[in-house]
Amino acid sequence: MPKNTQGIAVIGAGSWGTALALVLADNGHDVRIWGHKQEQIDEINERHTNHKYLPGLKLPAGIKGYTSLREVMNGITDLVLAVPTKAIREVLGKIAPVAENPFTIVHVSKGIEPDTLLRISEMIEEELPSSLLAGVVVLSGPSHAEEVSLRHPTTVTVSSRNMETAERIQDLFINQNFRVYTNPDIVGVEIGGALKNIIALAAGITDGLGYGDNAKAALITRGLAEISRLGTAMGANPLTFSGLAGIGDLIVTCTSVHSRNWRAGNLLGKGQKLDEVLENMGMVVEGVRTTKAAYQLAKKYNVDMPITSALYHVLFNGENVKESVDRLMNRTKTAEMEDLVNILGARLGD
Amino acid sequence: MPKNTQGIAVIGAGSWGTALALVLADNGHDVRIWGHKQEQIDEINERHTNHKYLPGLKLPAGIKGYTSLREVMNGITDLVLAVPTKAIREVLGKIAPVAENPFTIVHVSKGIEPDTLLRISEMIEEELPSSLLAGVVVLSGPSHAEEVSLRHPTTVTVSSRNMETAERIQDLFINQNFRVYTNPDIVGVEIGGALKNIIALAAGITDGLGYGDNAKAALITRGLAEISRLGTAMGANPLTFSGLAGIGDLIVTCTSVHSRNWRAGNLLGKGQKLDEVLENMGMVVEGVRTTKAAYQLAKKYNVDMPITSALYHVLFNGENVKESVDRLMNRTKTAEMEDLVNILGARLGD
Repeated sequence: MPKNTQGIAVIGAGSWGTALALVLADNGHDVRIWGHKQEQIDEINERHTNHKYLPGLKLPAGIKGYTSLREVMNGITDLVLAVPTKAIREVLGKIAPVAENPFTIVHVSKGIEPDTLLRISEMIEEELPSSLLAGVVVLSGPSHAEEVSLRHPTTVTVSSRNMETAERIQDLFINQNFRVYTNPDIVGVEIGGALKNIIALAAGITDGLGYGDNAKAALITRGLAEISRLGTAMGANPLTFSGLAGIGDLIVTCTSVHSRNWRAGNLLGKGQKLDEVLENMGMVVEGVRTTKAAYQLAKKYNVDMPITSALYHVLFNGENVKESVDRLMNRTKTAEMEDLVNILGARLGD
Repeated sequence: MPKNTQGIAVIGAGSWGTALALVLADNGHDVRIWGHKQEQIDEINERHTNHKYLPGLKLPAGIKGYTSLREVMNGITDLVLAVPTKAIREVLGKIAPVAENPFTIVHVSKGIEPDTLLRISEMIEEELPSSLLAGVVVLSGPSHAEEVSLRHPTTVTVSSRNMETAERIQDLFINQNFRVYTNPDIVGVEIGGALKNIIALAAGITDGLGYGDNAKAALITRGLAEISRLGTAMGANPLTFSGLAGIGDLIVTCTSVHSRNWRAGNLLGKGQKLDEVLENMGMVVEGVRTTKAAYQLAKKYNVDMPITSALYHVLFNGENVKESVDRLMNRTKTAEMEDLVNILGARLGD
């Protein structure tokens, strides 16, 4: 395995950043992990734990914590960006002035920026001068951080507009437990990762309403169809949505009670209002912002997204949760294939 | 809703047959349900319950139980066949001599016959003279019987070589809780329903080994890919596997502890031998037979099915469960898209 002799920077010391730092350290790389809380970074350096985010995990000595972006960036050529979508512009704005040489960014966040409607790789390209940005890679797939930190078998996809860069990043991360596949379709990988949070919110709602696994499976199936429809309209390869970053990530997020988005939806389904839910959760629920962005994208690309649209009106226009779900389920009887052919229409016409 | 004035026969008084009888009765049809156990049929007629299969359910008075196939078939033009795959030929052999007029069969079983490698609709066509068989429809999708009996929202697909017949059956079953879609691809609907049981067995194994949701999501994603690959080689439309009878049914079967196939796999993953598992389950585990059939089909159509093949060798050649799973996970690093493009290769070439 080729070692990055410079060390690799991981920006963000939450559960996902820490789990990915562990994978890189297991592969023999020196890892510098950055967080803004001094106490947490001291814990990483002195006790080799990050108990708030991955309780019970012992970090390898190859992971060193930093609170100074200048120190982290010193000589760095590969950077893993693991911060919430909302914080990306701010963090990049602080990295740009202290970076000394061009570097490749591997982003592992999932979202679409409302209003600008940019994917995360596009936000990164907008925020950093091309003289600094050697490449942008997205890493996505069905991967609970807790399980990765337990070294349970996990598969992910890396994608970039430059496949040589994607393959180099694949080499940095791949090991016996953490299997990394490449996919040249960065639009599809980013859209799949972002939009699954919408369906996870909706799946939480049907569970919160007391509907069962049949309803949830129908929702996931139709959710995948509408994600594919939008993604294809945006230029993605529809096949990506049949892969790890599409259906794989969708399944893990919709069927696990560990998913924040599912939990937020579950509270909505049980009758709480959005404000209460967000207050009770006390952390970022990416799916809420993403629902707004996807609703805007559906209008822009003139794509039918019934689940996203229903959820949008529940979240932002106070529509009744149960009535919206029942309306979704009771659309006029129809031929399933019409829906499915629509997804791949663009491809069929190639 | 057009009423079938003759009444509709449901052959098989297990949980699925009973739940479907309930849907039909809710729609105002007279339903005759057949079972071979006098005690169970007496219970249905006298107490309007079927407590062994759907405890707590009160059956509508429109459902009448029978143990005589001759009485059930009297004047019948629509028959729902809800018996295990293994029993289909025997039951049809007894129905043929007592049927007085042509009838349409809606089959709701999931399997492939080992050795003959026939789908269920093909077995039905082989077993009944064409003068008796007015049509064959398959009904499939993500549908736990328990949830259907609770009238929870459920979606299914009906398919037939004759779409007018499929639409007529759609009309018999559809109601507010039970949404029925049509799909002209009977090969895909039958293959999707049958082969998901293989992946459910494998998902039970990874859970039994203590691997997590990441591994299971990867398995389901790659399982869908190999089901699609075989199905497409057999003439199915690959889009069907993105629908309710494909990914929808696969999700519900792999993520629910109610699934027999998952439970059998779980015991295998925990170290039990196949003989012990089947004895402990005390009921039919369709996935075991289907694994054998799919292994034979993969050879016949020269299709790569790594999960099916690994499971076949675990079930029938005593290979070690953990080693087989680890080998599956650790295939050489690869480009995801190659795998996915293979699935739709036939279609791309159209």
